[in-house]
Amino acid sequence: MTVPAHVLYPPFNIVRLSHIVLSVTDLAASRAFYVDTLGLQVTDEDDKRIFLRAMEERGHHCLVLERGDAGIANELGFKVYDEEHLDKAAAHFKAQGLPVEWIDEPYQGRTFRTRDPQGIPLEFYAAMDRLPPIHQQYTLYRGVKPLRIDHFNCFSPDVRASVEFYNALGFRVTEYTDTEDGKELWAAWMHRKGGVHDIAFTNGRGPRLHHVAFWVPTPLNIIDLLDLMATTGYVSNIERGPGRHGISNAFFLYVRDPDGHRVEIYCSDYQTVDPDHEPIRWDLKDPQRQTLWGAPAPWSWFEEGSVFRGVEPRASKLNATPIVAP
Amino acid sequence: MTVPAHVLYPPFNIVRLSHIVLSVTDLAASRAFYVDTLGLQVTDEDDKRIFLRAMEERGHHCLVLERGDAGIANELGFKVYDEEHLDKAAAHFKAQGLPVEWIDEPYQGRTFRTRDPQGIPLEFYAAMDRLPPIHQQYTLYRGVKPLRIDHFNCFSPDVRASVEFYNALGFRVTEYTDTEDGKELWAAWMHRKGGVHDIAFTNGRGPRLHHVAFWVPTPLNIIDLLDLMATTGYVSNIERGPGRHGISNAFFLYVRDPDGHRVEIYCSDYQTVDPDHEPIRWDLKDPQRQTLWGAPAPWSWFEEGSVFRGVEPRASKLNATPIVAP
Amino acid sequence: MTVPAHVLYPPFNIVRLSHIVLSVTDLAASRAFYVDTLGLQVTDEDDKRIFLRAMEERGHHCLVLERGDAGIANELGFKVYDEEHLDKAAAHFKAQGLPVEWIDEPYQGRTFRTRDPQGIPLEFYAAMDRLPPIHQQYTLYRGVKPLRIDHFNCFSPDVRASVEFYNALGFRVTEYTDTEDGKELWAAWMHRKGGVHDIAFTNGRGPRLHHVAFWVPTPLNIIDLLDLMATTGYVSNIERGPGRHGISNAFFLYVRDPDGHRVEIYCSDYQTVDPDHEPIRWDLKDPQRQTLWGAPAPWSWFEEGSVFRGVEPRASKLNATPIVAP
Amino acid sequence: MTVPAHVLYPPFNIVRLSHIVLSVTDLAASRAFYVDTLGLQVTDEDDKRIFLRAMEERGHHCLVLERGDAGIANELGFKVYDEEHLDKAAAHFKAQGLPVEWIDEPYQGRTFRTRDPQGIPLEFYAAMDRLPPIHQQYTLYRGVKPLRIDHFNCFSPDVRASVEFYNALGFRVTEYTDTEDGKELWAAWMHRKGGVHDIAFTNGRGPRLHHVAFWVPTPLNIIDLLDLMATTGYVSNIERGPGRHGISNAFFLYVRDPDGHRVEIYCSDYQTVDPDHEPIRWDLKDPQRQTLWGAPAPWSWFEEGSVFRGVEPRASKLNATPIVAP
Repeated sequence: MTVPAHVLYPPFNIVRLSHIVLSVTDLAASRAFYVDTLGLQVTDEDDKRIFLRAMEERGHHCLVLERGDAGIANELGFKVYDEEHLDKAAAHFKAQGLPVEWIDEPYQGRTFRTRDPQGIPLEFYAAMDRLPPIHQQYTLYRGVKPLRIDHFNCFSPDVRASVEFYNALGFRVTEYTDTEDGKELWAAWMHRKGGVHDIAFTNGRGPRLHHVAFWVPTPLNIIDLLDLMATTGYVSNIERGPGRHGISNAFFLYVRDPDGHRVEIYCSDYQTVDPDHEPIRWDLKDPQRQTLWGAPAPWSWFEEGSVFRGVEPRASKLNATPIVAP
Repeated sequence: MTVPAHVLYPPFNIVRLSHIVLSVTDLAASRAFYVDTLGLQVTDEDDKRIFLRAMEERGHHCLVLERGDAGIANELGFKVYDEEHLDKAAAHFKAQGLPVEWIDEPYQGRTFRTRDPQGIPLEFYAAMDRLPPIHQQYTLYRGVKPLRIDHFNCFSPDVRASVEFYNALGFRVTEYTDTEDGKELWAAWMHRKGGVHDIAFTNGRGPRLHHVAFWVPTPLNIIDLLDLMATTGYVSNIERGPGRHGISNAFFLYVRDPDGHRVEIYCSDYQTVDPDHEPIRWDLKDPQRQTLWGAPAPWSWFEEGSVFRGVEPRASKLNATPIVAP
Repeated sequence: MTVPAHVLYPPFNIVRLSHIVLSVTDLAASRAFYVDTLGLQVTDEDDKRIFLRAMEERGHHCLVLERGDAGIANELGFKVYDEEHLDKAAAHFKAQGLPVEWIDEPYQGRTFRTRDPQGIPLEFYAAMDRLPPIHQQYTLYRGVKPLRIDHFNCFSPDVRASVEFYNALGFRVTEYTDTEDGKELWAAWMHRKGGVHDIAFTNGRGPRLHHVAFWVPTPLNIIDLLDLMATTGYVSNIERGPGRHGISNAFFLYVRDPDGHRVEIYCSDYQTVDPDHEPIRWDLKDPQRQTLWGAPAPWSWFEEGSVFRGVEPRASKLNATPIVAP
Repeated sequence: MTVPAHVLYPPFNIVRLSHIVLSVTDLAASRAFYVDTLGLQVTDEDDKRIFLRAMEERGHHCLVLERGDAGIANELGFKVYDEEHLDKAAAHFKAQGLPVEWIDEPYQGRTFRTRDPQGIPLEFYAAMDRLPPIHQQYTLYRGVKPLRIDHFNCFSPDVRASVEFYNALGFRVTEYTDTEDGKELWAAWMHRKGGVHDIAFTNGRGPRLHHVAFWVPTPLNIIDLLDLMATTGYVSNIERGPGRHGISNAFFLYVRDPDGHRVEIYCSDYQTVDPDHEPIRWDLKDPQRQTLWGAPAPWSWFEEGSVFRGVEPRASKLNATPIVAP
């Protein structure tokens, strides 16, 4: 199939993905992982929540860890252009019959929550507290030196439907995989901010969060993280990599946090700001699309993901067997 | 002073800087420099012109070398969102009393030329021939492995006026330097595509092109280029660096082409897509703004630049002495 | 067990490993691999042999490719201190009842061949033609930018016996693995030149060559090679890695040449020149000894190796099952 | 001139440079520099002395900071092969009429001090307390990730005499510069451990210590250090670099400690273990010998150095004007 054409003039302007809220069962263990090991910076914390930002971010948080009974993925947060666009966004979702709930979120201005048609919880706002820059306070850099949140990746039980929904919001497909018979979408990478993706969808039991990704300076920082994790008790949290993706051309590493939430460490994809940027098609049978260098991903990487708050994952409408597994 | 506020809803959408046309006196010498040494890819050439693109670009050219009698900078090219925006752009410039000339450019769709109020020749288009991706043809990577054109930097005799003009086109200031008395702008970095800049202006005799910059993967590629240039007859073409800029936080190297046109090799700046992204102010007396590590730039770097086609450089309205020189 | 103590005053001075002669079935295919892809430099060639050196070597060759009927490993070459030491070496082997055959080798001075007690063919010389330095001719660097030959690694059917033999020649153990019951040596890394090893032995059907290794500048060069091989038809020649070894702490990649000879690309081990440098003991059950980051090696890596000229591999005296396999 | 031939069979075996003792005026300030900024590890300390080692070293110390009234360079320490060689060394110096004083040094076995003919204080031992390896405790790596001490560099008022003295001890010249008329040695790099140098001498008022150097993993670690120093109050301690030396081909950075002692951060030279390794000759008029990329060193780098304990620097026998200065 061909990928659905993107909408040139979307109804409102989503600037970029912004943040994610993860429920974790042990705040101290998660802090050791995200702060002491990955190197994110704490911007606020109490005994219920920890707010974190990466080194070049000025917004208050890109990751919120919330103490909970289980490792659950909560809202995927997006920043819109301004308050006018926020109202347009709320109107757009309401018109589609999707829920719109205005909430108070600390450090954020006017904010509403909704869900996409697959049930993924979303959060939109225009203004978040801005913090002084720290990207030149080099004494603060630790771990993998995370610079910014880069993207979300979700299992979807209906990738075509997910792509059509986000296309209508102005997300453009940069790369995609179709099924063996060429009739359906298996996976798609979609962006707003000018990289390969702000959000991606892969066929599978869902909706579930596959991973959240952070951008780092160079592949050597990923090697540093591997050395650190391997010698500080986190060797079994290393799931896949390092390697080069065929899709996105990025250098990657996948690690699991103490609750099993998957985090991708990511760098070196490419600029996609042109509105006429052509999507790249990949064949589901091409093993190099996942790892350019040929190494297969482990089974867990195909099968496991974080359940989203309040939505039961469903079987994919396509053959749910990850036929591309190792 | 404070930097002029940027325009939230500009009259048309400039996507990014696109390309530059440089007049050079010896095409073969320039080819040896840009192709064999820097590693740009030839997309077309004859005995009058060479068209080049960088490794991740899909557009036909980011640099056009044109045989001429002298080393002259010609048009700075920009890509707009679509044909409708191109017409809005033409109307905008006409309304300001600026020239608009529709021209035929090979490999580009409808294209017009104009000049900014300082006289810098500009070129706008919406569509350029798209070429198949080569970013995963690793056998083609050479030299410094240039990935894409990143920005232009110009001397302006009136930086405040330049900033106001480009602000009105939707360019946002990310960093700036004001004068010692805090009353005037000395320099400003302005972006459209979400990095630190698509174009920057520095006080000085102008308008002149200070440099055009190319983005590369990591600082190690810049070290590779230095080793290569130093041992292939280009040691005197190395002008400044390597180093880390205070402004932009980028890792940089400045080299001169055979006609003296200055090229910056650049990587590692930061994402600026937020519309409420706050500009960073630098003090003209702070030596770390130019090189975070403290090393001064050579005199030539402050004084020399390429004249633009058909416009005589004028003295700056500010004290033209580069008081910040080494 | 403890590793056998090394001999402080060996009977002669072996300076370092020097070169290897590999029989290959298709010289052109091997040339494409070693020269065009890995980046070794041709120092001489005809239709029967290709002589190669790495970028910082002054000796004429570190690898000789010889056209043959099968992919066979021939001599492992070592350089001794001077002609006097060469004669002492010949006398030493003769006294042990080992064969000593003086031969004429192009580009080498007086040279003899012998075999170690397991049957591995060895070659010793003091003088090899010296070539002008090319390490600062950066235009010649290609592929993985190989700087020098680093080590040999061999399967031995009796690792303890191999270690005792090479200990007596002055090779010092830097790291080793003993068997699960702690009674036998499973593997050992032994050096002369001050790194982790010039030669290593691993338990297995042997003698066979496991791999020859080349030293490269940084892990990023290994990533470059992976990108290049993955996109020039060599993806299936990538066998294992990249990764960090627990043993040696080196960053590694294993690739296979067109005949299946295994080549390790290697960097970042440590200095071992102290005569009282203590060997590091590893547990056979510790998966991090092979890959610090935990990823297992593929089965082929444990099982496959190159047969040495004229010696039939024998089953190991230990349990030959690589119980440590993935 | 040609460099004096090295002695193939020196009277005793010096394994490598080992350590240096620096007098500093403020232990806390020096600790902040060497430990918190460069990343050396404290192995012992009290209110008079701090003992430090680098990450891959097993010996107790490579640097001893001693509280003193002024920034003075004390002993240059060398490790010999064993106690027998230590006695031979003592005998050798006595026979030359040089002082030999046996002393008690903490963490070292039998140790004697002497001076070379120019007056440089030297210290020799065979055994130093060995510590458990920490090179795989990646959580300890900080700053520039120093791996090991690499070399000393001294001003000598008579380079030829210095070279002849150290040649006789088995040090081999790897690279050298002769004077403009080709009649005298201007500088020489001499090694024992198989790299470009354990010690080097440059013409100038002396004897004085020019610098002590530490080996680091890659150029990117040097960039990290520059970023860190530039933003933690040490920007004026950055003296020269980063760059690539012509001589040694190493990547370098020179920084000054709080007392002005110069430290080189160094990586990427080459292996020199062959006894027939040919020295490389450089022309005093070739600016690329100091920085391959052409940038001149600052005046301070040519003029300033640390005085050695108890020896008054003398004018060079050659023209002391550093005619090669910027």
